[in-house]
Amino acid sequence: MTYCVGMKLDRGLVFMSDTRTNAGVDNISVFRKMFLWEREGERSITLMTAGNLATTQAVVSLLNERAKPAEDRGAPSILEAPSMFQVAKLVGETLREVIAEQSGRTGPQADSPFSATLILGGQVRGGEPRLFMIYPEGNFVEAAEDTPFFQIGETKYGKPILVRAYEPEMSFEDAVKLLMVSFDSTIKANLSVGLPLDLHLYEAEGFRTGRVHRIERDDAFYEMISSGWGEALKSAFKALPPYTLE
Amino acid sequence: MTYCVGMKLDRGLVFMSDTRTNAGVDNISVFRKMFLWEREGERSITLMTAGNLATTQAVVSLLNERAKPAEDRGAPSILEAPSMFQVAKLVGETLREVIAEQSGRTGPQADSPFSATLILGGQVRGGEPRLFMIYPEGNFVEAAEDTPFFQIGETKYGKPILVRAYEPEMSFEDAVKLLMVSFDSTIKANLSVGLPLDLHLYEAEGFRTGRVHRIERDDAFYEMISSGWGEALKSAFKALPPYTLE
Repeated sequence: MTYCVGMKLDRGLVFMSDTRTNAGVDNISVFRKMFLWEREGERSITLMTAGNLATTQAVVSLLNERAKPAEDRGAPSILEAPSMFQVAKLVGETLREVIAEQSGRTGPQADSPFSATLILGGQVRGGEPRLFMIYPEGNFVEAAEDTPFFQIGETKYGKPILVRAYEPEMSFEDAVKLLMVSFDSTIKANLSVGLPLDLHLYEAEGFRTGRVHRIERDDAFYEMISSGWGEALKSAFKALPPYTLE
Repeated sequence: MTYCVGMKLDRGLVFMSDTRTNAGVDNISVFRKMFLWEREGERSITLMTAGNLATTQAVVSLLNERAKPAEDRGAPSILEAPSMFQVAKLVGETLREVIAEQSGRTGPQADSPFSATLILGGQVRGGEPRLFMIYPEGNFVEAAEDTPFFQIGETKYGKPILVRAYEPEMSFEDAVKLLMVSFDSTIKANLSVGLPLDLHLYEAEGFRTGRVHRIERDDAFYEMISSGWGEALKSAFKALPPYTLE
């Protein structure tokens, strides 16, 4: 499995992804699930992936190949699309194309479908920062005021705290803290999500890759959040008024 | 879907179940998912069900029929089995029998399998209070020190708080509060779990049904927990030290 969250704040976009991939519990690896593109001063694009690794790697490779300047490239590039909406369309079509190609082959078939779900966010000069969730069918939805964040992968454990503590005006610092709590709740409950975590903080109107950080297994702040949150939850729970049995 | 939790405490067993059943989001009903049997002074048995409603109702009806005193009944009864382990075996066999019978029919077939998972708990004189999770195959596992509670149905949203705040020595009052927080996190995130909730508090060495309560939609304590927990979570979150961007 996987856990990735993309979040839209007043001051920009925040992305966090885990790095664990597994084919059964006895075959665990570390793979990056966050991919960044930029054209400095003009656009920044972040993509996070959940699903079949062969599928998502093929999507990223195709996007990369097509982003390279080459006269005979043919296919349009996410570095040239005129808006984030057009970037989302391109990524969606690429995903659909890869899944169709992999599923349409004759020969051995996998038990699980070659499927994937993506979170795409960024800003192209002339537009606002935008955040999308892209489905295996190639279509997508955009984050808006009422649903200002997207999760993909193992989303359930970490959702309650996001719903309760998210505020659009929160600082990047608080957003990272919130995401760490959400990831920690997930990692504690589900073996298929694991450290290290990748983080990208895109500042609105930056038009370039923002701060990028990898949170490693021994990250002191993560460890403090992980142990501190248990205590904080217990105190919050104790502070609630007691139930009275009739 | 469904959400039920059974919990083993030093002072007894605590059971909570929701009552929502649905066949699609446009077909929602209220059905009891908690069933109690007792032979006063000798045994108390609680069963909670998740899965296909036709399956679980058939299981409960069969258990009820077989529990009635009748000379030609034939099948053994959960009111007569000599231990909770034997009760669990009987319930597991009944579940297996019902699923096999429903799945083996010719004619129209449902898209989803006639499956169900059960939580069974109680005490028979001569033994300790015991708690089991019973699988569609009819086999089962028992709660022990390291895993002192079982969840069935929509388990993920409400698990982090259970893992963090459960303590075997907690009072019934605190256990109910904890379960309400866990149910509230689930109900807020998932339409397929809903109020009212059923509650049974079995006191160890009681050998009779303990306190039973239905928490209705307008329950004042539940409403206070539901709104208070959001605030408590936010305060707990704010109390954690801030992240510092490098």
